[in-house]
Amino acid sequence: MDIREIGEFGLIERIESKLSSSHKDIIKGIGDDASVTQVPKGKLLLSTSDTLIEDVHFSLNFASAFNLGRKSLAVNISDIAAMGGIPRFFLISMGIPQKISVEFIDEFIDGIRDVALSFHAHAIGGDTTFSPGKLVIQITLFGEAIPGYVIYRNNANVGDYIYVTGNLGDSALGLKILDTKDEPSKVEEKFRDLVEEHNNPTPRVNEGRLIAENRIASAMIDISDGLISDLGHVCKQSKVGAKIWLENLPLSKAFQEFSREFTDHPMDLPLSGGEDYELLFTVDKGNVDLLNKIKHGFQTKVTLIGEIVRQDYGISVLDNNGQGYTMKKKGFDHFL
Amino acid sequence: MDIREIGEFGLIERIESKLSSSHKDIIKGIGDDASVTQVPKGKLLLSTSDTLIEDVHFSLNFASAFNLGRKSLAVNISDIAAMGGIPRFFLISMGIPQKISVEFIDEFIDGIRDVALSFHAHAIGGDTTFSPGKLVIQITLFGEAIPGYVIYRNNANVGDYIYVTGNLGDSALGLKILDTKDEPSKVEEKFRDLVEEHNNPTPRVNEGRLIAENRIASAMIDISDGLISDLGHVCKQSKVGAKIWLENLPLSKAFQEFSREFTDHPMDLPLSGGEDYELLFTVDKGNVDLLNKIKHGFQTKVTLIGEIVRQDYGISVLDNNGQGYTMKKKGFDHFL
Repeated sequence: MDIREIGEFGLIERIESKLSSSHKDIIKGIGDDASVTQVPKGKLLLSTSDTLIEDVHFSLNFASAFNLGRKSLAVNISDIAAMGGIPRFFLISMGIPQKISVEFIDEFIDGIRDVALSFHAHAIGGDTTFSPGKLVIQITLFGEAIPGYVIYRNNANVGDYIYVTGNLGDSALGLKILDTKDEPSKVEEKFRDLVEEHNNPTPRVNEGRLIAENRIASAMIDISDGLISDLGHVCKQSKVGAKIWLENLPLSKAFQEFSREFTDHPMDLPLSGGEDYELLFTVDKGNVDLLNKIKHGFQTKVTLIGEIVRQDYGISVLDNNGQGYTMKKKGFDHFL
Repeated sequence: MDIREIGEFGLIERIESKLSSSHKDIIKGIGDDASVTQVPKGKLLLSTSDTLIEDVHFSLNFASAFNLGRKSLAVNISDIAAMGGIPRFFLISMGIPQKISVEFIDEFIDGIRDVALSFHAHAIGGDTTFSPGKLVIQITLFGEAIPGYVIYRNNANVGDYIYVTGNLGDSALGLKILDTKDEPSKVEEKFRDLVEEHNNPTPRVNEGRLIAENRIASAMIDISDGLISDLGHVCKQSKVGAKIWLENLPLSKAFQEFSREFTDHPMDLPLSGGEDYELLFTVDKGNVDLLNKIKHGFQTKVTLIGEIVRQDYGISVLDNNGQGYTMKKKGFDHFL
């Protein structure tokens, strides 16, 4: 169905009926000039914003509307997880080109709702508008955290160990696989998990919360631009350097088996591929025993991949022989 | 200068250096996975989001980068004003096409900063990304309000008077004037104020706050889509109808003098033109004396333009003879 058949306000009502939900802290959700919420006593408000633009962040050829909805909210939840917080409320804005059907929006909103239900996030507002060019999706997510338990980027110390959750590089490899196909349905069964990691990342809220509650990490960030680029933010803000041990990087079986089919430089993917949405965090050596205890509560593995060093050493990637590894591409810059 | 010369992170640093500011409730502003703020005890959090897309909401031929920055934040502040709230913190996201220069972004951010300083709003985060199509600007603004003093759309009652701040129609007429010119510099001096109303609207924060603090209004909304359309939201949510008295609509001198040069249906502009960013509010007749007292604190005039009636009467516009006026166009729908 063409969106013109139901009009802007028809579309808004349709979205509202799918997304509106109640929560004790939502005083007024979707449907007024602004939403009205309360922040529980003694809690801090976290807020983060991510824009996804067609043909920059996603391709309508590669992702279903449902998965696009899932990912749009998931990448924001990942930012809240990286602070050690819990997602709460979100506003969603869409710039919608003419080619998009009502059915597409329905499925997209179903995808958002799916992730929202999993992570107890509630829609409280937004904005829909026509877009003469590309589909534009913008979500602002609020989270909640306890004062004193928020984990920033700027507190990593020389000697801290560097850990990551999950595997690295699958998302970037999944994208490379998609790039070789006309459409996702043509992806062979054996590559499906890799493509799924790209289209459907899992934000690490539970892990971030456990890390924060136990005050294990000195710094934390989610890996969206690529390991080295995001580690670079931590190092810059903490005024430190880092050594990464190449052989320690956590790689999935599928990655180890298939990555060479799609690139001559497979290790560039976990180092700089981006969109892993895993947590990178630094841990004082005195907290390692505690980490090993609490990691049983994680829904994914956690891997020691390096160590924080002095700032003047910079960031280096070393193989088992202590030789430096040089990437072809350092990280993702939207304008380069 | 081409943005590629400084790259994404160079651009972010540049924006951050212009916008970052401190406030006792900002614990972490721009520069982490999420911002961290606190909401003062006993205050409610308001949040609103507006997307401005090139060639839908603005034209780069008509508005300077500085004014575009001003307007992007001002339209969000207007939404907070319409709840009776005070603007506080905002996140700004931009999807930037290749044609946009670093200088353009500098001026745009200067425009944002100008409005932010006037209304005591502080940037706490955002997102910049490349856009393959149009320039996309998205701001999420947080505001603050006192419980019990927030004004919604759904509480207008039969018999309430309907008031608006300022003048109506100037913005729509200003846009019509711009449409006849190649560039804003060619606009004749006599039309400058009208064009300014379009490019540089003033959010009515002070008026909204006084209306809220004195509990004068039963319902309030800002006029962004057009008087009849926005009044329609109030009527629908309040389950009432409305009569608008055509001859009462507040028109500027410039509007009265020049509107017929640009349209055969001048009264359609104050009724449905949109982008006035004035407040429309409904007042119980018992509160009229109080309104007349507090309006001396307003920085703009306030005008009685109609009355709330029963829902089954619908919304009608009447001239001095009690005859109905029919608009050519009802309001703005982005998809029609």
